[in-house]
Amino acid sequence: MKILVTAGGTTEPIDDVRGITNHSSGRLGSFIAQDFFLEGHEVDYITTRTAVSVKEKHRLQLHYIQSTSELKAKMNQLLTENTYDAVIHSMAVSDYTPTNTTSGSAFVAQLAKEIENAKTADLKETLTHALDAFSQTKQENKKISSDEEKLIVVLQKTPKVIQMIKEMQPQTILVGFKLLVDVSNEQLVHVALESMKKNHADFILANDLHSISGDKHTGLLVRPDGDYKVASTKQQIAKLIVQSVEEKVKAKR
Amino acid sequence: MKILVTAGGTTEPIDDVRGITNHSSGRLGSFIAQDFFLEGHEVDYITTRTAVSVKEKHRLQLHYIQSTSELKAKMNQLLTENTYDAVIHSMAVSDYTPTNTTSGSAFVAQLAKEIENAKTADLKETLTHALDAFSQTKQENKKISSDEEKLIVVLQKTPKVIQMIKEMQPQTILVGFKLLVDVSNEQLVHVALESMKKNHADFILANDLHSISGDKHTGLLVRPDGDYKVASTKQQIAKLIVQSVEEKVKAKR
Repeated sequence: MKILVTAGGTTEPIDDVRGITNHSSGRLGSFIAQDFFLEGHEVDYITTRTAVSVKEKHRLQLHYIQSTSELKAKMNQLLTENTYDAVIHSMAVSDYTPTNTTSGSAFVAQLAKEIENAKTADLKETLTHALDAFSQTKQENKKISSDEEKLIVVLQKTPKVIQMIKEMQPQTILVGFKLLVDVSNEQLVHVALESMKKNHADFILANDLHSISGDKHTGLLVRPDGDYKVASTKQQIAKLIVQSVEEKVKAKR
Repeated sequence: MKILVTAGGTTEPIDDVRGITNHSSGRLGSFIAQDFFLEGHEVDYITTRTAVSVKEKHRLQLHYIQSTSELKAKMNQLLTENTYDAVIHSMAVSDYTPTNTTSGSAFVAQLAKEIENAKTADLKETLTHALDAFSQTKQENKKISSDEEKLIVVLQKTPKVIQMIKEMQPQTILVGFKLLVDVSNEQLVHVALESMKKNHADFILANDLHSISGDKHTGLLVRPDGDYKVASTKQQIAKLIVQSVEEKVKAKR
């Protein structure tokens, strides 16, 4: 089988020296990639330079990315060049990316100007337009000076990378990941099913930040019918995913 | 000699799964710590879990921190408990930390309300107050929902950790670091001298992001009289710092 695994967390640049990072060590993804190639499968592995590296990394095809837009470009390339039996998308992808950053005082000055020149009496509309204009202004991406008391960062939603997977390869088995914070198993399954529908995933590994501590890691591998299996370490989650994907691929043949 | 070395980059939490990170591998700092203990000195080493680890790390005292406020607390503790011959503060510390994050629409609604209820006709004053109020509102630090088109993050300046070093230990030799982007050597030295004065540092290692690529790393070790020595790899910078600190400590005795 040919498998694509993504692992680690993206970083969106604020300027040349700062970025917004999604915390993810990439450790779970590294176990998944490892288990797939130990079972004799061919693995493409998209990760970041700050994520943990896979043991025996010479045995898989490594692709490094940093930002969400780099991930999107790399995914597009790999999904165009190859046909995957399964895609395991464990990377923590930034939902938002900084569009423009400025000092508090410059931000206030710009908003005040927009309000004074507004063509409508609707204050909310004026402010919404001002925010749009601000986020569309190109920022010089050098190091922002640290003399100001406040900085304002406006973030814009990023395109959902996971959605392009089934669009480009409807035949592939897609395993998505959903991380929530401090919710019940019922809520985990509920959100997993929603995510599955939206992204046409075959499995969602749903987990709660508060049930992760080192290699202890509670994960629910949810299926479209709402049934799920539970694993309690990163190694068990990796095994469960490899097994479930292999079964599903066999069943389809 | 007893030495304190800081290395890596801090991360300021936006919520439970995202943070603002200062990019720094901690590699230069790891060479500095290593060279100090190879010369027979005792080293306390403050770093982050995502920074590169030092070879033979059992030979130094490791202290892990993540955010600027954790760094400040750890520095305060170590500078209270120990007397250092020198402090090499190579860590890339966040100048700003997120105070509050909200959706674009909630932000607009709040600003509009403040303007409507304003007691002054001065729009800038009203907006400044609104921004202050917003940044003082406590945010629930869970995972922010990704349904909104825009997010607004307000960052507040952090206290300068470097300034507490000479305040607490006026006798110590302090080596500070200054990273700029795309400037001349004259500008590097100029900014280094300003930083030296403000922080009462004995040396500033000034460097330019564009002159760093892997182990190739141009660094100017600037002295209070404006004289400087140049090193062109991370290893050379480490050696230059160890040598200069040793000379300075001997000269003081």
